[in-house]
Amino acid sequence: MPRVSSEYLAARRRHILAAAARRFVRDGFHQTSIQDVIDEAGLSPGGVYRYFRSKDDIIVAISLEAIGAVQEVVQDAVRTHRPLAELVAALPQAIAELDQADDRMRLAVQAWGEALRNPTLGEAMREGAATVVAVLRERILVGQQDGDVAAQVDPDAAAHALLSLIQGFILQRAWNPELSADVYGCGAGAVVAGMLAA
Amino acid sequence: MPRVSSEYLAARRRHILAAAARRFVRDGFHQTSIQDVIDEAGLSPGGVYRYFRSKDDIIVAISLEAIGAVQEVVQDAVRTHRPLAELVAALPQAIAELDQADDRMRLAVQAWGEALRNPTLGEAMREGAATVVAVLRERILVGQQDGDVAAQVDPDAAAHALLSLIQGFILQRAWNPELSADVYGCGAGAVVAGMLAA
Repeated sequence: MPRVSSEYLAARRRHILAAAARRFVRDGFHQTSIQDVIDEAGLSPGGVYRYFRSKDDIIVAISLEAIGAVQEVVQDAVRTHRPLAELVAALPQAIAELDQADDRMRLAVQAWGEALRNPTLGEAMREGAATVVAVLRERILVGQQDGDVAAQVDPDAAAHALLSLIQGFILQRAWNPELSADVYGCGAGAVVAGMLAA
Repeated sequence: MPRVSSEYLAARRRHILAAAARRFVRDGFHQTSIQDVIDEAGLSPGGVYRYFRSKDDIIVAISLEAIGAVQEVVQDAVRTHRPLAELVAALPQAIAELDQADDRMRLAVQAWGEALRNPTLGEAMREGAATVVAVLRERILVGQQDGDVAAQVDPDAAAHALLSLIQGFILQRAWNPELSADVYGCGAGAVVAGMLAA
């Protein structure tokens, strides 16, 4: 038998996840069966079960990918050392530029609800959110050391609020693909810049 | 036959919705059947079908209630004429004080995902969000007239960002009931007050 390379396995896994994502976006997690995923991927059942034991496994894997992608966007943005308002203003566009961003955002919103009942997904969501909060909190702490952020700000609480500016964009864009990432980003940036408390 | 008062009908409807909410919170929309709701309400099937044609009808009704409750909280807050940062800081606590707030927040997050596939719910969500955005936009416009909000702010974009601060709280609290509304509110208020752009 030919040796199966790890690249081949990874590509096959991605192929299955992409097929599942298409069906999940169209029909939702619950209206999609694992047979639908098998059909959409054009594989045998064994070809899918080799990678994923269940539909829930696929849901978790897709959600982890989406969380990871948003985490990376936030981490990359923080590394640029821009003022926080600018950083926040740029995030929606960076998220919208992710591969298949609109599908991912729709999947993310479905996964948020699913995370309330699926403990594995719930744990992954909480960890993903905690990681983003930690990155933002660090940035706020640096801002406090540099004097850009007021000393009395609770870095953890403010980081949760900044996370909301990202989550709200994902939710509002999932409902309305016409929502401009740039326009929303300017609005969020104006809020963080304190322009609503002139 | 005795006349059935409209109060009785409204009470019976609320009783069914409360029973459905308990099951939905515990098992999710999809794992709950209309028979589960009938059992939980302790009624005959006819006693439930008189009010709701389907489980989807019940999901829409519960979601509309939750949207309406949050809308009212925002409208009441805007009427108090406080500075925007204070207003935003107080919203999470006001939402957390709603009747059965934590259950409602968990239902809301489920409904966000459901709204992506159920057109009736999607329409209701979009309208509900648009109403809250309109209320916040009006408040921002008043702030611009009064000189509290910078003239260059796009009121609509900033209102979307403020909505995110509410939606993010609902999501983060649904995942983590330990998240303090007061602490989150202080963080959101600090962001709007411009304390992250000192």
